Amino acid sequence: MIAIKELITIDKTSDTAIYLQVSNAIIHNIRRGSLRRGLKLPGSRELAGILQVHRKTMLAAYGELLAQGWIEMIPRKGTFVVKDLPEIKPTRIKNVEPLAKYPVKTIFSIDEKRFAPFGPSNFPPPGKLVINDGFPDVRLAPSEFYIRELRSVAKQGAFKKYNMYGSAKGALYLRETLSSFLSDTRGLPISAENILITKGAQMGIYLAAHLLIKPGDNVIVGEPSYFAANITFQQAGAILNRVPVDEYGIDVDKIEAICKKKKIRLLYVIPHHHHPTTVTLIPERRIRLLELAANYKFAIIEDDYDYDFHYTSNPVLPMASLDNHGNVIYIGTLSKTLVPATRVGFMVAPENFINTVSHLRRTIDWQGDSMMEVAIAGLYRNGTIERHIKKVVKLYHERRDHFCALLKEKMGSHISFKIPDGGMSVWTKFNKVDLKLVAERAAKKGLLMSDGRIYNTNAEYNASRLGFASLNLKEQDKAIEILSTCM
Amino acid sequence: MIAIKELITIDKTSDTAIYLQVSNAIIHNIRRGSLRRGLKLPGSRELAGILQVHRKTMLAAYGELLAQGWIEMIPRKGTFVVKDLPEIKPTRIKNVEPLAKYPVKTIFSIDEKRFAPFGPSNFPPPGKLVINDGFPDVRLAPSEFYIRELRSVAKQGAFKKYNMYGSAKGALYLRETLSSFLSDTRGLPISAENILITKGAQMGIYLAAHLLIKPGDNVIVGEPSYFAANITFQQAGAILNRVPVDEYGIDVDKIEAICKKKKIRLLYVIPHHHHPTTVTLIPERRIRLLELAANYKFAIIEDDYDYDFHYTSNPVLPMASLDNHGNVIYIGTLSKTLVPATRVGFMVAPENFINTVSHLRRTIDWQGDSMMEVAIAGLYRNGTIERHIKKVVKLYHERRDHFCALLKEKMGSHISFKIPDGGMSVWTKFNKVDLKLVAERAAKKGLLMSDGRIYNTNAEYNASRLGFASLNLKEQDKAIEILSTCM
Repeated sequence: MIAIKELITIDKTSDTAIYLQVSNAIIHNIRRGSLRRGLKLPGSRELAGILQVHRKTMLAAYGELLAQGWIEMIPRKGTFVVKDLPEIKPTRIKNVEPLAKYPVKTIFSIDEKRFAPFGPSNFPPPGKLVINDGFPDVRLAPSEFYIRELRSVAKQGAFKKYNMYGSAKGALYLRETLSSFLSDTRGLPISAENILITKGAQMGIYLAAHLLIKPGDNVIVGEPSYFAANITFQQAGAILNRVPVDEYGIDVDKIEAICKKKKIRLLYVIPHHHHPTTVTLIPERRIRLLELAANYKFAIIEDDYDYDFHYTSNPVLPMASLDNHGNVIYIGTLSKTLVPATRVGFMVAPENFINTVSHLRRTIDWQGDSMMEVAIAGLYRNGTIERHIKKVVKLYHERRDHFCALLKEKMGSHISFKIPDGGMSVWTKFNKVDLKLVAERAAKKGLLMSDGRIYNTNAEYNASRLGFASLNLKEQDKAIEILSTCM
Repeated sequence: MIAIKELITIDKTSDTAIYLQVSNAIIHNIRRGSLRRGLKLPGSRELAGILQVHRKTMLAAYGELLAQGWIEMIPRKGTFVVKDLPEIKPTRIKNVEPLAKYPVKTIFSIDEKRFAPFGPSNFPPPGKLVINDGFPDVRLAPSEFYIRELRSVAKQGAFKKYNMYGSAKGALYLRETLSSFLSDTRGLPISAENILITKGAQMGIYLAAHLLIKPGDNVIVGEPSYFAANITFQQAGAILNRVPVDEYGIDVDKIEAICKKKKIRLLYVIPHHHHPTTVTLIPERRIRLLELAANYKFAIIEDDYDYDFHYTSNPVLPMASLDNHGNVIYIGTLSKTLVPATRVGFMVAPENFINTVSHLRRTIDWQGDSMMEVAIAGLYRNGTIERHIKKVVKLYHERRDHFCALLKEKMGSHISFKIPDGGMSVWTKFNKVDLKLVAERAAKKGLLMSDGRIYNTNAEYNASRLGFASLNLKEQDKAIEILSTCM
């Protein structure tokens, strides 16, 4: 009789189910040879007694071992460790040794210049005091509700339904849900066929850019504009035409002047809380942009990433809701509404565009994660997302006011800024002091912040987006206290 | 006193928590005017009595309404519906009517030819009898374990940690986990810095293609080869050089002959269970390919999507595990191991390649879904994935044998095929009968299957991959019974 009791330790406080602890321990001992091949094992009743577990637990453990192929049951003879272990072991190739050390560099050349790093590269560990670019407070996210939806998708037999390959446009259930949400909140009379579910706003920008831009095409962007969009257009081969952004948004007269001189393929605008300057594009300019796009037949990417976050004014209807001609590709995201790492966004456009872009998307990642998409549709349908938006808007409003008051009180003439209507950050220009030095000093004192270089284009702004939404009032006090000593 | 009892209906059998039912009902009534602005509401104790719910439930409901900004509590006065409702309503633009009907087509031109549809376009609803391309049986997926991991990520305060923006390479925890899993199973002496987490194998192919290929570059692929890879290379501007695939894999002599004539940038191979033919590339050819790549300095994409599914033989060590020179970009996926719609795959390459490719990936979708990535790392660490692979390999082995026996018995000389060593499908040539007609007849009889056209290249094969893994034995009986009547 083998001393099987000594080979199996059970930890009743562990998260792992006991039957799995037992089967894992038996596998471990088969592997290391303590339970040899062909060995007869005690019956389940006997072993349950030895290990002092319920017989059902022991049956489940044996069931597991059987399913994995470690043991066999021979009628009227008993339970045995199999002779041929079910291990997949790679076949070695004769006379060829596998690597001891993996190569450090490729033998072929890579265009490292074209695909240079951009944006923030180091991600501070949680617990650090950080003034970020304007991210939501992930501590407020309705994570319980999200997990509950995921579980319910997995339960309903829906797991089966939603886990085979599906449409590159995204789960129909989410597209239907979004089409009615966007119609209610943004006046877009669309159907599911006008929507493609993306991975954040970024994938929307990428897809539109790569569908539309051929090398040498002219694209108009703001000066300044969102750095990741600029890089995406340039990588696609675009020539960027930079048009100043003033307090009313992008300068439409300048755009018209350019259109008279050359063929424009694409215009990129951020209508609410422009990145980085936080200004909102005024209605008059929206109308004129639509007219220009209709006349000169260019496409507009309307990146409305920040539509849901208004504190003292209401959002303006998107250009997409006024566009009779099919010029506008409307982009939005849930990264700010839920959490940045939940990569769900959407693109709204006429059906021919959505169809074609879905074929491009298929080559990129085939499709999205359907279970997640269906769970998020559930969050819309049971009101969680609306409820969450209401709550955080109230809170962020308070945080904005506190933050701006602090900036004014503690930073005085070292900086200039305007209180933003909405969004999650304050576009702050540093006067007579090098922001790079400020950020270095702040880091030494435990406050991490951008040195502002990612917002520079050809021009240098010595400015940064100071994100207030992810800091509670106490954290804001601490952060600005430190910042004020770094001037 | 308002008749609040009549306005609020509580359904104790609903999935929605009661406090949310109460707060949702109150919001609904505020919106429709039944509870007017400024109205004094009953105290929580009183309303709890009226609605016959626990006072704590009522406190939670009022807390919710307060957080969302629908009610206010004035000390010593009571609870009131607020006067300014917290609704975000878009501002209409003067004299401009929003669309009643959304435009059908874009005004600007789209290159629909370059981004043409490919691959299967219609996704059969669950419940239909389908012979697919070789997909796993999603009914077997360890969904409970996956949800448990997701919940534990959300609980541990890790939600906070993993839901801010992070590395474009993927969650470090998963990259570390995978580097030790791949080292154990595939002899790859790698670290986390050699791994980029992708969305399925497809994103690996896309990223490598777009990093490496400039318009006009020569790429070698098999004849036949995986259709989605072919399309991806062509969209990136590659000229495809098609090299025959025989029963030992791709023809290496022919590759050498091409290399002598022109500069090759990239070779795409599928070393196990080649798509579509299911053949495995023999060791001798693997070694020669590595030599050729070192001599002619081209990159190899080794798409080992099917490594974990071997029934009668062991897998051969990947070329990546023998590659001293940094030629090989090794790609794998969990789409076959877990479920197709869980979009997690990986790319293994020298560090300079992974770094550069991560900058390209940032422009595409910024990063993956960290919560999901960390949950999947948990599935590796607690043994779920290994256990699941063992179970399904045993089952799929049985399904392969049954399926091939059925094909032989029922289909006879109408088809020719070889029993595959592993994988999830049988590459089946139809003799003297047009597969397109067969598929049409089958569809009429309730069996959905490919008409084989997606496997055609310049050549027409009149063949299809008949997937056996997602059908249990009974379903196989039924499917082949139908198929046999369609000849």
